[in-house]
Amino acid sequence: MIRSEFWVVLTLGLALVGVRNRALGDEGMWLFNNPPKEYLKKTYGFEPDQAWLDHVQKSSVRFNSGGSGSFVSPDGLVMTNHHVAADAIQKLSNQENNYLRDGFHARTRSEEKKCVDLELNVLQSIEDVTAAVNAAVKPGMSPEQANAARRGVTAEIEKASLEKTGLRSDVVTLYNGAQYHLYRYKKYTDVRLVFAPEQQIAFFGGDPDNFEYPRYDLDFTFFRVYENDKPVKLEHYLKWSKNGAAENELVFVSGHPGRTSRLNTVAELEYLRDTAFPFLMQRLYRMETNLKVFSDRNSENARRAKDELFGIQNSRKARDGGLAGLLDPALMARKRAQEQKIRDAVKSNPELADVVDAWDRIEAATKKQLEMNRPYAMLEMGAGFNSIYFKIGRTLLRANAEKGKPNGERLREFRDSGLESLEQELFSAEPIYPDLEIVKLSDALTHLASELGTNSPVVQAVLNGKSPRLRAAELVTATKLGSIDIRKKLYAASSDELAAAKEPFVELARLIDEESRALRKKYESEIDEVKRQANSQIAKARYAVEGDRVYPDATFTLRLAFGTVNGFEENGKKVPYVTNFAGLYEHSNEHQGQPPYDLPKRWLDRKDKLDLKVPFNFVCTADIIGGNSGSPVINRNAEVVGLIFDGNIQSLVLDFSYDDVQARAVSVHSAGMIEALKKIYEADELVQELLGTSK
Amino acid sequence: MIRSEFWVVLTLGLALVGVRNRALGDEGMWLFNNPPKEYLKKTYGFEPDQAWLDHVQKSSVRFNSGGSGSFVSPDGLVMTNHHVAADAIQKLSNQENNYLRDGFHARTRSEEKKCVDLELNVLQSIEDVTAAVNAAVKPGMSPEQANAARRGVTAEIEKASLEKTGLRSDVVTLYNGAQYHLYRYKKYTDVRLVFAPEQQIAFFGGDPDNFEYPRYDLDFTFFRVYENDKPVKLEHYLKWSKNGAAENELVFVSGHPGRTSRLNTVAELEYLRDTAFPFLMQRLYRMETNLKVFSDRNSENARRAKDELFGIQNSRKARDGGLAGLLDPALMARKRAQEQKIRDAVKSNPELADVVDAWDRIEAATKKQLEMNRPYAMLEMGAGFNSIYFKIGRTLLRANAEKGKPNGERLREFRDSGLESLEQELFSAEPIYPDLEIVKLSDALTHLASELGTNSPVVQAVLNGKSPRLRAAELVTATKLGSIDIRKKLYAASSDELAAAKEPFVELARLIDEESRALRKKYESEIDEVKRQANSQIAKARYAVEGDRVYPDATFTLRLAFGTVNGFEENGKKVPYVTNFAGLYEHSNEHQGQPPYDLPKRWLDRKDKLDLKVPFNFVCTADIIGGNSGSPVINRNAEVVGLIFDGNIQSLVLDFSYDDVQARAVSVHSAGMIEALKKIYEADELVQELLGTSK
Repeated sequence: MIRSEFWVVLTLGLALVGVRNRALGDEGMWLFNNPPKEYLKKTYGFEPDQAWLDHVQKSSVRFNSGGSGSFVSPDGLVMTNHHVAADAIQKLSNQENNYLRDGFHARTRSEEKKCVDLELNVLQSIEDVTAAVNAAVKPGMSPEQANAARRGVTAEIEKASLEKTGLRSDVVTLYNGAQYHLYRYKKYTDVRLVFAPEQQIAFFGGDPDNFEYPRYDLDFTFFRVYENDKPVKLEHYLKWSKNGAAENELVFVSGHPGRTSRLNTVAELEYLRDTAFPFLMQRLYRMETNLKVFSDRNSENARRAKDELFGIQNSRKARDGGLAGLLDPALMARKRAQEQKIRDAVKSNPELADVVDAWDRIEAATKKQLEMNRPYAMLEMGAGFNSIYFKIGRTLLRANAEKGKPNGERLREFRDSGLESLEQELFSAEPIYPDLEIVKLSDALTHLASELGTNSPVVQAVLNGKSPRLRAAELVTATKLGSIDIRKKLYAASSDELAAAKEPFVELARLIDEESRALRKKYESEIDEVKRQANSQIAKARYAVEGDRVYPDATFTLRLAFGTVNGFEENGKKVPYVTNFAGLYEHSNEHQGQPPYDLPKRWLDRKDKLDLKVPFNFVCTADIIGGNSGSPVINRNAEVVGLIFDGNIQSLVLDFSYDDVQARAVSVHSAGMIEALKKIYEADELVQELLGTSK
Repeated sequence: MIRSEFWVVLTLGLALVGVRNRALGDEGMWLFNNPPKEYLKKTYGFEPDQAWLDHVQKSSVRFNSGGSGSFVSPDGLVMTNHHVAADAIQKLSNQENNYLRDGFHARTRSEEKKCVDLELNVLQSIEDVTAAVNAAVKPGMSPEQANAARRGVTAEIEKASLEKTGLRSDVVTLYNGAQYHLYRYKKYTDVRLVFAPEQQIAFFGGDPDNFEYPRYDLDFTFFRVYENDKPVKLEHYLKWSKNGAAENELVFVSGHPGRTSRLNTVAELEYLRDTAFPFLMQRLYRMETNLKVFSDRNSENARRAKDELFGIQNSRKARDGGLAGLLDPALMARKRAQEQKIRDAVKSNPELADVVDAWDRIEAATKKQLEMNRPYAMLEMGAGFNSIYFKIGRTLLRANAEKGKPNGERLREFRDSGLESLEQELFSAEPIYPDLEIVKLSDALTHLASELGTNSPVVQAVLNGKSPRLRAAELVTATKLGSIDIRKKLYAASSDELAAAKEPFVELARLIDEESRALRKKYESEIDEVKRQANSQIAKARYAVEGDRVYPDATFTLRLAFGTVNGFEENGKKVPYVTNFAGLYEHSNEHQGQPPYDLPKRWLDRKDKLDLKVPFNFVCTADIIGGNSGSPVINRNAEVVGLIFDGNIQSLVLDFSYDDVQARAVSVHSAGMIEALKKIYEADELVQELLGTSK
């Protein structure tokens, strides 16, 4: 499943920035203010006009928990994937009402359930602020100064925009610093659950079928957005296509791809291959085992850990595929040849003399990265303190220090324009289970000791003379951060009051804060900034060499992708573009209906009611990646023909390189969604709302 | 489950040697030629005489697959644990007959099934050969020379003994080189499966209950030993106790503890804690995940991977507990204080002047170990080539080279006295599943690239321009080593013929052989030998300081342990010494009968027939460890009162330090075994044989 994984991005030490990228075929995650109009016109005879683009943009929704969605009715109905919604559904569930397992269906508006901490964003406008940002960075500044100046001006632009418009305002770094755009979002925080199927059918086939095709998943969930306790009234929403996706049809995907690394230099890719990915995989393996062990103890444990375990397994399978791509010498040879071509061109062009050593500067930065990767990941990224309590404790500690500083000098996550979202998360009513937190923290502290050495001063300070297990239990037992009131009190506290509270996780964060901040500062100035400057130079050189059909690497901001609905060949056999309900039942039978191939009871009971030939899932060539989960697939008329939920196994190298031979995006078919809602769930009111036939 | 884990020992880089150890309370894994007679007499008023010791020794059986057992009838019936037998049962199973899952019951001798490659050893005699071994090592020899000389004389002693007696002859290094004993074994290779319960009940509670207590496992299996196609007739076998283990009773455990590290120096323990254990855990996590993913695809995959997956999960849980012990500052402080005491004593004794720097020499050796641990584990230990095919291919390659050398100069596993056992394994009819081998090898090659760097020459040579996945598939598809005939042919081939065969896995082994052998040589002379010499000096010093109640660290050779049948306290509550059948059903109900707490159908159907008050599992204080699995628990009359199958979670630190406060050995009760055999399995003929009431 292609849900976005912020923590993965962070653990890998990847900056969320990119460089110019020359596109081929259906390649590209295009900016809404720079779509490939000419190519579309030439290839498909279709040119989206500004009204079309505005309409699709304002119908598109970003899930800040990591995914995409769209408005699909004038009454604020939002469609996304079940696995994007899972985090919110899990937080609404408890031992009595296991909505994640059993599904949820509000038959009336009053039954719709308000989510605990979900924030949705809808992009309203894009403004180019490159000149203003660049003006702040003076020639001759050190990397550290340049980084501070850029952070300062960015925070000011965002704050001014927020104050002026009331809209969430984020400066987005595009083309790796060649451009900076200000994105303004309408923000919705009253989001209510309308309909979710059983996870069994949403994630039918489980981990074995994840990232595979053919596929049979009803991976959707519907929410409704409220304002002032009433459903919002929308001008822009997507209508439903009568027939849904057809073979060879041109389709568009409007969503929020999280991150790509397509124009990384070879040195960066080798760092990912030999250091960052192996380190990440190691963490994923241990976290997966640890949560599996916890889950296997009893069914309530399994329920508590379910969504987190899914996220880890999903990342493990995705990153395993990504690493396999990096270990493919053919891919690396291609990258090496591309790089050599640009380097040769740069060498022979005297105007680009200052770019000649850009690759070497990046390589030197990756060497530094290699040196400090582990302490940085364990301390600053928090890998050594895997617990919600630690996250809260550190946020309280740092908010206390940062809020007193001028806006432009703060750590980025504490800038004024982001505080509202930060508070939404900090004061979330998300259930926390102390037993699960002890298990996670205990393992993380063990990992911390292994990585940094048990005798190292920072580990000795953290463990405080105890074993990791004992220390974790002690901290979790003593913390009061389970209480939202306490969090609010400590958030409002003075520095002295915070210290006097002796909250265990605030104090734990304090113990490592000096060392951790120093690592971050070093990382940002000596690695990120050096890479940003060098990559930005390379980007300009590429532009000179390769011309102008370009899109930036993914940044979890709104992009437009396109492609055709098409099967592919695998091991000499054609894999058809579409599956149907008959295939679902056959696939279950092939596995004797055993988990994860078991079907919910009503799917067995109501099989006869279904038209088994109705399309269920399908694939297309659109260029998507993690974060695109929940994106609508639309036709030329901007009507919904499907819902992106995954990529096939061949698509897992799309992080590094686009391919339209075998790589495919996997979607739920719009006709299959209606068929299931009608015949299995008898959700007639929802069907009518989607089809626009409500009375 | 406390099955022995040779590969773990190897991956940890632990030598199977120990130093003198002063025992307290019921501590000790005693040599049969040096039992703690005085202590037993003084404390328990019982003194085993030589006849008792001989009888128990010759009734004890070693499973070379990694475990213990005992003769329990005059007709060659052998009792062990189901999880010790699982490897053999798995190898007898196929898609049609899943004996591991469904159990097996031969109602007549003709139905008993011959195992594929099981070798059982029964210790016949022990001879002290210390003088002969020491005579070969001359003063002034370098570590490398000393190691070679010792290996040479050892191989000669073993060969001479084999030729003279026809018995398997192994020189065992005890007290870390302070003593060398020649162990002579009667060897049985025609071993037939008689009875095994369903794995469900043998391993009831699965991973969650593993190493926990209270417990409810029927973890037994019976084999029968044949010679000349007839059951052997035995003089020495254990009779069945009428009542079984009673609270506070003195009991003995005769079995083969695999390895302990109780007298490691602090430097060695810190190496284990910060390097060896974390590296091993990382491998276990990835192998567990990898096999789980393979198993989850379908039920046949699950069957194929089952025993291997169990072994990995079992090690993961055991080692996790061991690491937690090492990370307990209290344990390490105790170790440090003990070490300081000896060091102080040594310093103040001029006669021990050459021992003063022994600890520093060991610490220096652990630094070297730290440097070469990863390449050594990946290449020489084979962690980078996790496949049965590689194991076979390397054995063929090395046998070809080693058999031509004088006996004393060969790698230890190819010495004459061991060749028969080596061939038994090499030509095993164990089923090999190419799909599973691809999955394992592909992951191992990925790990190899991560550990040694994809660009390193050895990795480049191994991958041969392909990705790990492609290379693994290519090798497994091309190999012919699935055929035993081919293996036999290549084993008999000349060096030229072997090279001409171009067998992929032989050639793969050849690619790394020079580097791998060099690592081994360096490891053995610069680490093992240095430690052996230093530890041996320390052992003598300890002896001078601490006196003579001593036993050597475990070496997977026969030992006698003792203790009392006793519960323990946990979190302020008393945990009773025994469980019963009623508790089994309750425990299943607490988990709604969901796996791994589901019961086999006949256990549900025949519940009414059982006397639910009959004891099922019990605990005692005997000093046991991995490798003791399947050991008989006997009373003063050498009658079976139970069957060791596990230690509780508190026992997982017994690798490093004995404890009788909470640590307990867990056994199946003899009365419970009879009750289940009679009432659930209607195995009357087996019950009569055990009770000696056969007609």
